[in-house]
Amino acid sequence: MAAEINRLEDVLDEHIPSDQLKEVKRILFGNAPIKLPLNSNVEEKAKSINVDVEGYKFDCPKEQSRAARLVRVGAIQNSIAIGTDEPVVNQRDALHRKIGKIIDLAGECGVNVLCLQEAWTMPFAFCTREKYPWCEFAESAENGPSTCFLQDYAKKYNMVIVSPILERDEAHGDVIWNTAVVISNNGHYMGKSRKNHIPRVGDFNESTYYMEGDTGHRVFQTAFGRVAINICYGRHHPLNWLTYGLNGAEIVFNPSATVGGLSEPMWPIEARNAAIANSYYTVAINRVGSEQFPNEFTSGDGKPAHKNFGHFYGSSYISAPDGSRTPGLSRVRDGLIFSEIDLNLSRQVRDKWGFRMTQRLDMYANSLGEAVLDEFQPNIITE
Amino acid sequence: MAAEINRLEDVLDEHIPSDQLKEVKRILFGNAPIKLPLNSNVEEKAKSINVDVEGYKFDCPKEQSRAARLVRVGAIQNSIAIGTDEPVVNQRDALHRKIGKIIDLAGECGVNVLCLQEAWTMPFAFCTREKYPWCEFAESAENGPSTCFLQDYAKKYNMVIVSPILERDEAHGDVIWNTAVVISNNGHYMGKSRKNHIPRVGDFNESTYYMEGDTGHRVFQTAFGRVAINICYGRHHPLNWLTYGLNGAEIVFNPSATVGGLSEPMWPIEARNAAIANSYYTVAINRVGSEQFPNEFTSGDGKPAHKNFGHFYGSSYISAPDGSRTPGLSRVRDGLIFSEIDLNLSRQVRDKWGFRMTQRLDMYANSLGEAVLDEFQPNIITE
Repeated sequence: MAAEINRLEDVLDEHIPSDQLKEVKRILFGNAPIKLPLNSNVEEKAKSINVDVEGYKFDCPKEQSRAARLVRVGAIQNSIAIGTDEPVVNQRDALHRKIGKIIDLAGECGVNVLCLQEAWTMPFAFCTREKYPWCEFAESAENGPSTCFLQDYAKKYNMVIVSPILERDEAHGDVIWNTAVVISNNGHYMGKSRKNHIPRVGDFNESTYYMEGDTGHRVFQTAFGRVAINICYGRHHPLNWLTYGLNGAEIVFNPSATVGGLSEPMWPIEARNAAIANSYYTVAINRVGSEQFPNEFTSGDGKPAHKNFGHFYGSSYISAPDGSRTPGLSRVRDGLIFSEIDLNLSRQVRDKWGFRMTQRLDMYANSLGEAVLDEFQPNIITE
Repeated sequence: MAAEINRLEDVLDEHIPSDQLKEVKRILFGNAPIKLPLNSNVEEKAKSINVDVEGYKFDCPKEQSRAARLVRVGAIQNSIAIGTDEPVVNQRDALHRKIGKIIDLAGECGVNVLCLQEAWTMPFAFCTREKYPWCEFAESAENGPSTCFLQDYAKKYNMVIVSPILERDEAHGDVIWNTAVVISNNGHYMGKSRKNHIPRVGDFNESTYYMEGDTGHRVFQTAFGRVAINICYGRHHPLNWLTYGLNGAEIVFNPSATVGGLSEPMWPIEARNAAIANSYYTVAINRVGSEQFPNEFTSGDGKPAHKNFGHFYGSSYISAPDGSRTPGLSRVRDGLIFSEIDLNLSRQVRDKWGFRMTQRLDMYANSLGEAVLDEFQPNIITE
């Protein structure tokens, strides 16, 4: 098997002549954000733990009547830390240690709002359809070990941390959910937001473990802007993105776990389209690596049973309301991506493009209301 | 000013080494459709009228219980034919002659459903905000000169033709609309579909001329599949795309007129995202060239008055429900793009990915219904 390309952008940079490169990238990626230099301490530490760190800054015009609202928004993508046949607690602790070091880097880079990848405390074992030991990774959103672990970092770095975990809801019959926990920059638990759309495709047999979320489209008013979380498969649903926008989101994270053969050509499209359509920032986060499981499983594709699940292609990126985006992180390596953004750009783009003003939401509320009725008849014209 | 790049894909083809090119294109564009050879007659005629012709074929697995439903779907992008200071009827007639020749090519290529660009019978004069002479381009959808002109071609080539024009609705007070007329393969007028979302951005002062469409999201059951038309700025509205899907569209055309500096980085994203999200085919069509107007006008951007409007960057392309897409037509040259598609792919992708099944439309009907209420309070969690 040929080696995976590390980054699409590297291939373009290497081969496209410089007189055409800028225009090619403008067409593909919009107005390029500035790449921020890293301090040498960060560079050294990142190298020592084998993590890519990339910082950017999106352009935003100054306003006369509002001060800029500059925020550094960041995301971590990573492979698992130790084998999936190790004891559950050891696997989780190893991920805690690994991610702790990357959060330290984020802290040094001045990241204000950081999001980890989907189910970051565990391998993405849902492909196996085995309940145990994987259900043991589920933990309380409010005071589970991963929330507690991150609260210290949040306080230390004055950083909002979004922590997507497998949740065990003990107060409601021990049910499991796919949930993002939001921890404030003071280290307090702010709340949780559950995955609204659950896939049943290929290796993603997630409805075996948890149902569609019941927390709606809440938005978290943090010290660094209004944040929402659209978990993984929810990115395929424009209404999901839109409804976070209706509740006032300025930054929507999309912590994900998705693999190359299945979704990679959709990856650069969906979160970026959401940023355009809703005039807010989006951050798409995907894990990296492949994960080897103890027992063999099938993928619902007629192919032989196997133990390997991957390749998760990383490529995490940040999109701005004007349709521009950062390059993606590596397709194969752990990484931290962050960008300085001005939250004011959201309203500026709304004023310029007018997507919200021209949205005709009342018409669509009616259309959707009709479409869900049993007696709905599609509006079809025949000759 | 540097010459415009003809096609993004050409730059990639020329410079990316062949061992990496396939993977780069897979990530950027999905599974490549096959390029169809043209017969030499078409090639010769196309060359003689200086039009690019490109044919593709998207892959689709065979089903056991349904025969393939193969359709050739096509689109024409073009510059205007003569100066904007010529008499209105001459301008329209010149466009008729020009497009007639390209439809002949489409007929020879076996195109079954063809869509022309937005307001194809005229320059895109709405930038001027002058009512005359431009309002004189408006004509009856039912039996105006352009509908009559195309009916002959439709019958001759057994081809459904979608004709986006400036409509004059004489039966309702002479009001002007931005409208797509659908002509059946028998040459009959099937109906019309009006532009649902009207821009007020930069040079696109279109609300000066026509209001938001009142024809909803009708879908046309043609001999070659169920067709809908999302005109231009409607592509920025995911709900617009979605509602055509709810009514059963299998192919949604997006006839447009849009310029480089404004929208080009969004262009490859939006129609393709719609194909993915709604599991149908989309065809994005944009005119080419720049248009020089008799009187100067300003663009609402603080810059000096000018007479030129462009560059319209073409780049028309076709997307499949699985997220793959064709290359774009030229950014500067007239062109005809077509692709053989199997309409069955739409349901196959729905079965595989389940976006419709997991859509939770009832929840969103409620959410939108609440969001339009005066007393709506966004769902915001504070610390």
